Amino acid sequence: MKILHSTPAGDNFYMPAEFEPHSGCIMIWPERSDSWQFGGYAARKAFVQIAEAIAKSEEVTVCAGYSQYNNARQALPPHIRVIEMSSDDAWARDVAPTFVINKDGELRGINWQFNAWGGLVDGLYFPWDKDNAMANKLCDLYRADVYDAGNFVLEGGSVHVDGQGTALVTENCLLSAGRNPSMSKSEIEEYLKAYLNVSKVIWLKCGIYNDETNEHVDNICAFVKPGHVVLAWTDDTDDPQYEMSKSCHDILCGSTDAKGRKITVHKLYQPKPVCITEKECEGLDNMNFEPTRIPGERLAASYVNFYISNGAVVMPGFAKPDADDEFNASYRNSDAAARRTLSELFPDREIIQIYTRDILIGGGNIHCITQQIPTPCPNKSNIPSDTAGNQS
Amino acid sequence: MKILHSTPAGDNFYMPAEFEPHSGCIMIWPERSDSWQFGGYAARKAFVQIAEAIAKSEEVTVCAGYSQYNNARQALPPHIRVIEMSSDDAWARDVAPTFVINKDGELRGINWQFNAWGGLVDGLYFPWDKDNAMANKLCDLYRADVYDAGNFVLEGGSVHVDGQGTALVTENCLLSAGRNPSMSKSEIEEYLKAYLNVSKVIWLKCGIYNDETNEHVDNICAFVKPGHVVLAWTDDTDDPQYEMSKSCHDILCGSTDAKGRKITVHKLYQPKPVCITEKECEGLDNMNFEPTRIPGERLAASYVNFYISNGAVVMPGFAKPDADDEFNASYRNSDAAARRTLSELFPDREIIQIYTRDILIGGGNIHCITQQIPTPCPNKSNIPSDTAGNQS
Repeated sequence: MKILHSTPAGDNFYMPAEFEPHSGCIMIWPERSDSWQFGGYAARKAFVQIAEAIAKSEEVTVCAGYSQYNNARQALPPHIRVIEMSSDDAWARDVAPTFVINKDGELRGINWQFNAWGGLVDGLYFPWDKDNAMANKLCDLYRADVYDAGNFVLEGGSVHVDGQGTALVTENCLLSAGRNPSMSKSEIEEYLKAYLNVSKVIWLKCGIYNDETNEHVDNICAFVKPGHVVLAWTDDTDDPQYEMSKSCHDILCGSTDAKGRKITVHKLYQPKPVCITEKECEGLDNMNFEPTRIPGERLAASYVNFYISNGAVVMPGFAKPDADDEFNASYRNSDAAARRTLSELFPDREIIQIYTRDILIGGGNIHCITQQIPTPCPNKSNIPSDTAGNQS
Repeated sequence: MKILHSTPAGDNFYMPAEFEPHSGCIMIWPERSDSWQFGGYAARKAFVQIAEAIAKSEEVTVCAGYSQYNNARQALPPHIRVIEMSSDDAWARDVAPTFVINKDGELRGINWQFNAWGGLVDGLYFPWDKDNAMANKLCDLYRADVYDAGNFVLEGGSVHVDGQGTALVTENCLLSAGRNPSMSKSEIEEYLKAYLNVSKVIWLKCGIYNDETNEHVDNICAFVKPGHVVLAWTDDTDDPQYEMSKSCHDILCGSTDAKGRKITVHKLYQPKPVCITEKECEGLDNMNFEPTRIPGERLAASYVNFYISNGAVVMPGFAKPDADDEFNASYRNSDAAARRTLSELFPDREIIQIYTRDILIGGGNIHCITQQIPTPCPNKSNIPSDTAGNQS
C-alpha cells in the first residue's frame, strides 16, 4: 500500500455515490461498555442482522478486536468475513477510509484525521489512536493505495456525495471548533473538492437535534439518486427539529447541484423523539467517572441513517419487534411510513428494516456503522472529471 | 469461512508441493524479546529482506500485532501487505494454515492444533493461544473454508509433501510425547493421509541436532521435485549430525514414493556448527526467570530451511556480509557451496541467499517463518486423488 501525497482530484479519482455498485462493505464489532448497554449483547445482535442484510447482495467484512474475535466469528454467519483489527469503537463510517475510484478501474482510499468527533474540544472519547489507524490498515487489507489527507479532520458520516460532482455537508459539523478550527469555510471547501473530487459543496446549517457528532449530514439528509435527496422531517413546530429540518429544506430547495439541476427534496418523517430510559442508562459503564448518557436524554434518531447496499436499503426501525404496547405503537406507524417512503424512492431495491434502538443508544445508526467499498467501473462515462469544465 | 469436519482426502483436496505455483506467502512480524535478540531489530531486518525476496515473484502478506503494526508497515516496502493479527511469535510455517486445493480451482486451509512444539511437556513457550487461533483467522482472511483437524497436534514444518501422494516426516517430532501421545504411529499416519491426501508417508527417524522442535523435517530434508530430495549432510563422523543424517539417508535410499519411484537424495552440506555467543545471549530476555539460550549452545543451523517461491529459492546464509574475518570465512565457503547445490537443483529459479543468523537465534530459519498459499490449478491432471488407486 502506497501512501499518496497528491489528491484524488489531481489524479482523476473521485468518490462515487453510495447508490452506485459496491464490491463490499466494512463493519466493526462493538465492544466498549460505555457505548453499548449491558455489555453490547443487544447491539451485537442488531449488528449481526445488519451484516446479514447487507451480505445478501455484497461481501461484508467485520473487523473485531482480539478479545472479541471469537465471539464475532461465532455470532456471524460463515459467508461474512471477520478479520482481527483493533479499534476504539465501532463506527466504520467515520474511521474506515473513504474510497475513491477512477475510470481505469482502480480503487484508492482516503485517510482523514479522525479525532473522535472533536478531539479535546468536544470529542466523545479519548484516546482515539486505534480508530485513527484503521483507514490505512483497511486500505492495506484491500491492497488499495491511500491518500494522506494530512491534518485535515473529517469523518465519513459528515459528507454525502451524488457521484456527479456534488457534496452535502453541515456547517455545524465541518466548522466545529474541535475539527479544523484554523481553517476557513472556503479552505475546508477546497479540501473537500480536492479529495472527493467534487465541484459543488452544498452547505446545510445543521443536522439532527442533539446529534453528538456535531450533526453529521448522514443522519439528516442523503442522496437517493442524482438531483434527489431525502431529508429527515417533522411537521411538529414545537419540536426543535422542525426549525433545523426547515433550514435544510430551504437551503436545498434553493440549491442546484454540480450539474446545474435543482435539488428535489423528499421528506422522510422522523419517529417521535426517542429518549433513553433509566434502565438503559444503568447498562452503560461510566467513562472517566462520568455517565455517558442521562436518563431521559433525547437520542439522535433518524430514518435517514440507512445504508444502500447493492440490492437493498437497510434502514433503521424503532418499534421493538413483537412488542404490542402503546409505547411501540407510534414507532410502528412511523417505521412503516418511512419504509413506504424509501420503497417509493428505491423501487429496484429491497427495503430491509432492522430494529436498531440498541445501536442508537451507542450514538448512531446503520449508516454510521457501515462503509461501502465502491466497485471501480472502468470507462464509466459520467465521472466528474470528465465534465469538470462544465461544473464549477 | 466455513469450518469443515470432513477431511481433504474425502473431499478430493490435497496439499500441493511447495515447488508448485503459489498465489502468495504469509509471514509474521517478530517481536518477542525472549526469542529475538536485542529487541528483534536485526531479526526484523532479515525478515524484511526475506519478504522482499519472496515478493519479487508472489504476493506477501505480513501479520503484525497491534503494537508493532506501524513499525512493520514502515519497515516493509509498499507492495508487501501488512495486516493486524495477534500472535505469540513469528513462525508462520507452524501456525498459519496448511493449504489444500482441488481440481476445481478451490482453496481450503487445515487448522491443526498448535501447542508451541510440545505443550506442557516440552513446548517452547506458554501460552500459545494467539498462535493457535491464527490458522482460522488466516483462512477467513483469504475467504478459504477450513478443515478442523480436531485435537490432532501438528505444525507445518513437521511435514513436507511432493504433491503427488508422498509425505516426509520425522519420528522424533511426530511421535514426541508433547504432541499426540495417545496415538500410535499408524493412527498418526492415517491422519496425515486423510488431511494431506497422501498415500505414502516416509518416516525419517530424526532431524537436525539440537533442533528444539523435536526435529522438524523441514530443517533436514525437502523435496526439490518429485522423486528428489535434498538432505542436510556432513562428512564429519565426529559430529552428532553425521549419524542423524546418515540414518535419514539410509531410509530415503531404501524408500519409494507414492508413485513407486526410488528417491534420489541430493546432499546439501551443512555449515560448521553455529553456536550462540555470550554477547548474543545477553540480548535475550529471560522467559519465566530462565534464560532461553545458554552461551555456546549449538543452534539448529541448516541450509535445507529454504523457501521455494514462484521465481526463486530463498535460502539461509551464515556468513555475515562484509565481515572478512576467519570466523566468517568458513561460513562463506559453505554458503557458496550450498548455493551452488541449490542452483543445480533449481535451474529455473533464482537463488537468493540471505544472512539469517539473527533468525536462527530465534529458533528457525526461512522455511519456518513462511507459509505458501498454493494457486489452485483447475483440471490439473496428476493430483493424488486421480491416481489414488495405484499408489498405496
